[in-house]
Amino acid sequence: MSSNPKLLYAKLFDHLEKTRSFESALQLCEWDQETYMPEKGILFRSLTTSNLSEICHKNRTSPAYKKLLNSLINLSTGKIVHQDLAVKDVANLKILKEDFEQQSKLPVTFVKNFTKLCSESTFAWQNAKEHSDFKSFSPYLKKIVQANQKKAAFLGFKHHPYDALLDLYEPGMTTAILDELFIKLKFELVELLQKIKAKNKHFKVIDKNASFHHQMELGRNLLEGIGLKPDFSRLDTTAHPFCSTLGPADIRLTTRIIPDDFMSNISSVLHEGGHGLYAHGLSKAAPGLPEGQSASLGLDESQSRLYETRIGKSHAYLEHLLPILKEHLKKPDLTLEGLYENMNRIEPHLIRIESDEISYCLHIILRYEIEKALIEGSMEVAQLPKVWNEKMENYLGVIPAHDSQGCLQDIHWSMGSIGYFPTYALGNIYAASIMEAFSKQHHNFNEELKKGNLSSLQSYLQKHLYDHGRLLKPLEIMHIMTKEGLNIGPYISYLKDKYSVLYGLD
Amino acid sequence: MSSNPKLLYAKLFDHLEKTRSFESALQLCEWDQETYMPEKGILFRSLTTSNLSEICHKNRTSPAYKKLLNSLINLSTGKIVHQDLAVKDVANLKILKEDFEQQSKLPVTFVKNFTKLCSESTFAWQNAKEHSDFKSFSPYLKKIVQANQKKAAFLGFKHHPYDALLDLYEPGMTTAILDELFIKLKFELVELLQKIKAKNKHFKVIDKNASFHHQMELGRNLLEGIGLKPDFSRLDTTAHPFCSTLGPADIRLTTRIIPDDFMSNISSVLHEGGHGLYAHGLSKAAPGLPEGQSASLGLDESQSRLYETRIGKSHAYLEHLLPILKEHLKKPDLTLEGLYENMNRIEPHLIRIESDEISYCLHIILRYEIEKALIEGSMEVAQLPKVWNEKMENYLGVIPAHDSQGCLQDIHWSMGSIGYFPTYALGNIYAASIMEAFSKQHHNFNEELKKGNLSSLQSYLQKHLYDHGRLLKPLEIMHIMTKEGLNIGPYISYLKDKYSVLYGLD
Repeated sequence: MSSNPKLLYAKLFDHLEKTRSFESALQLCEWDQETYMPEKGILFRSLTTSNLSEICHKNRTSPAYKKLLNSLINLSTGKIVHQDLAVKDVANLKILKEDFEQQSKLPVTFVKNFTKLCSESTFAWQNAKEHSDFKSFSPYLKKIVQANQKKAAFLGFKHHPYDALLDLYEPGMTTAILDELFIKLKFELVELLQKIKAKNKHFKVIDKNASFHHQMELGRNLLEGIGLKPDFSRLDTTAHPFCSTLGPADIRLTTRIIPDDFMSNISSVLHEGGHGLYAHGLSKAAPGLPEGQSASLGLDESQSRLYETRIGKSHAYLEHLLPILKEHLKKPDLTLEGLYENMNRIEPHLIRIESDEISYCLHIILRYEIEKALIEGSMEVAQLPKVWNEKMENYLGVIPAHDSQGCLQDIHWSMGSIGYFPTYALGNIYAASIMEAFSKQHHNFNEELKKGNLSSLQSYLQKHLYDHGRLLKPLEIMHIMTKEGLNIGPYISYLKDKYSVLYGLD
Repeated sequence: MSSNPKLLYAKLFDHLEKTRSFESALQLCEWDQETYMPEKGILFRSLTTSNLSEICHKNRTSPAYKKLLNSLINLSTGKIVHQDLAVKDVANLKILKEDFEQQSKLPVTFVKNFTKLCSESTFAWQNAKEHSDFKSFSPYLKKIVQANQKKAAFLGFKHHPYDALLDLYEPGMTTAILDELFIKLKFELVELLQKIKAKNKHFKVIDKNASFHHQMELGRNLLEGIGLKPDFSRLDTTAHPFCSTLGPADIRLTTRIIPDDFMSNISSVLHEGGHGLYAHGLSKAAPGLPEGQSASLGLDESQSRLYETRIGKSHAYLEHLLPILKEHLKKPDLTLEGLYENMNRIEPHLIRIESDEISYCLHIILRYEIEKALIEGSMEVAQLPKVWNEKMENYLGVIPAHDSQGCLQDIHWSMGSIGYFPTYALGNIYAASIMEAFSKQHHNFNEELKKGNLSSLQSYLQKHLYDHGRLLKPLEIMHIMTKEGLNIGPYISYLKDKYSVLYGLD
């Protein structure tokens, strides 16, 4: 192997770019499967996606890749082999070493069996959810929990097995941090929710009907408005909205159109748009390198929630939207107050994805508490429905009539993901801290927002978030940006300020 | 390696199925590129498709595959190694041996350079076509011709280098066969065309306007009517219509919608539908094996032309279509005669893909004569525009005003394909012979066609064509079906009978 560091680094770059291109093909398969694939295409498609996954995994863990990486950064000592690489290259290498070590800790047979288990469990979950039959899913969930315990053991941890899982989705996050954070957050949210409930205030419900065609047109208009141009992005419809980045200039967003609720579409479009803008902001960097990747699921979610709630549910932005909605949805009678009230109605819901801003994190905390208990073994899978329903009653004051509306509602566990849910709550907390830090520097943003002008915010996010890629840990990025790291203060203040006015609280 | 033949064959099956799955991902990338990909996605997409192509090629020529194949069929002697395989398995192995030998004759560096040349040439051609600038394309075409001469030398041939190229697209076809066939065909077509011209008969042009939405609805209705159900196929729009089979139950068809010509859409949909039905008929067999593949480009084209012309332009089927068109296109005044006359108007056109049934093969013969002359070196690339225009005048009586309408109109040469065009003419000839053989057994088909009932034809095609897969050569299949092999008789009779009535010839 050559010992020219520039040449070796270029070779590494090519290898990672190639791997990224296979991942892009895999993502296209998945996007197509949700959007346009004929129903019966699934059988052969499963084979294609499984073969592409195998290639991606192989490329990330092969002896050839290990050798190449080791020629640039010593995998035993962590020392950079050649001293004349750029600072950014060194930063990339350090993250790549961590990635490689993490991937390599999991034995190939474990990965293979885990993938098979998840695929079977997802199938079982779909059936169980449809018939609200927790018992039929319970043996699979037991195996998923056991496999995750095993995974945590392979990955290693200092204090709690859940930490090892968390770190996969939110690097550097621990149960110690989350426990403290979520206890405070739960207390504040439950109290706020009770105050609002006590007011017994009901807003006039507005007519939210709009045709598929008009809603899609509106969706595309909103995306262009926030900067996602059609020459590098597109919007389609799926049962569950998502954003998938197929390449630096190929961002696929989807929404769900409910004919009698155009507001749901606005929220979905802006949510996925937030993810898309992060992806677009990263697009100048190399697609296969950490510098071109989002910092964590939590920070990615901070962007989607920022656009969905901090922009999309704000009085100022709705003022900008009003004439657009009137025109695109053919609703000349729409008023700003009607729109604002209906977009921000607080009403605890059994389903996480239908939740208002205050209930949302309580849904997440409930899941976190259960996941942690399952992983540490202090709770049995058999207890899940009972525990779920009790927590729902205590935190949100609503009780599922059956498990489909309760512990069977989410796909995550069946897909093997334990440790993922907390990133949804972190996204909201990060978003509030980011907005507070930004507002300190830009006092005029509310006025800009009334005109739909997001440029100051977008420059800020580019510089303070997107430009870091995945070269810093999420908490490092937050610390640099807010000077105080992780803190629920800004999030709670935002909620209290906004909903005290809306609901007339003291 | 195990010596259990069933086990070895199963291993081979898995390898080919896996290769097919990567090919399917590649096809999805190409389909997406033509249908929905955002414009700027092309840069990263090119990398993805090139990496997938590389994997497909490697899988088909790797030493591991060679060893596996050789353990079942001796690659030196052609002898089947184990005697207890099924007859069909043996037939598959013989074709796979031929495929492997053909692929292996081309050195890897040649394949790589050729791919690069084609990609550059296609780009140059697009530009040249746009500006009708033959000179800018000419150096690329020279290289393409030279590379094809080299390719022919690598592949080997007995009589004419063009035979080696032809065989890639139409196994078993030779210049000796085509020369004889095309001389007769040219004579007949030119004569028929002149007779029609002399009549100077003009049909009343009907209003062919229809909205995009109505035309797409009609297209989907037509496809369902011929048996392509939406649970295993779909229709989208592209600049150039095509049919791509992503898997046994995932057939992607496209059409082009011209707002003032709904007939063009009908022709495209039925043409691609013919390809799609062949793919569907093959779908019961293993996707990676010759038994599950179409016999040749010519036979594939026989199915598209059969559905486009023998069904779609027939008086009987148009009788069935009339009420459907009236309803879907909102054209209550449409008449059967107006429809039939306008679908079958003979008027030589400069552009191949816009041609009527009689001109079409003359376009192909012109290209065949030029290709053969270029490959054997009896004609220079520089002479192309002149030769092209002279032949156009002699055969069709029309002369291109510029090369965009002439020798720059097709993409094929820029993509490196020389020897491909003849399969288009063969498709028409095969289709006529197939229809004659079928009609001898089914006298009532015309009456069935008036009701849109294609079941007897479809059973016939399934049994006599689709079920052979690629286990027989095209001429073997034609010989079994028609008892006389390749013969322009049925094609000429069909054209003469049909157009003598329509144009009142003697």
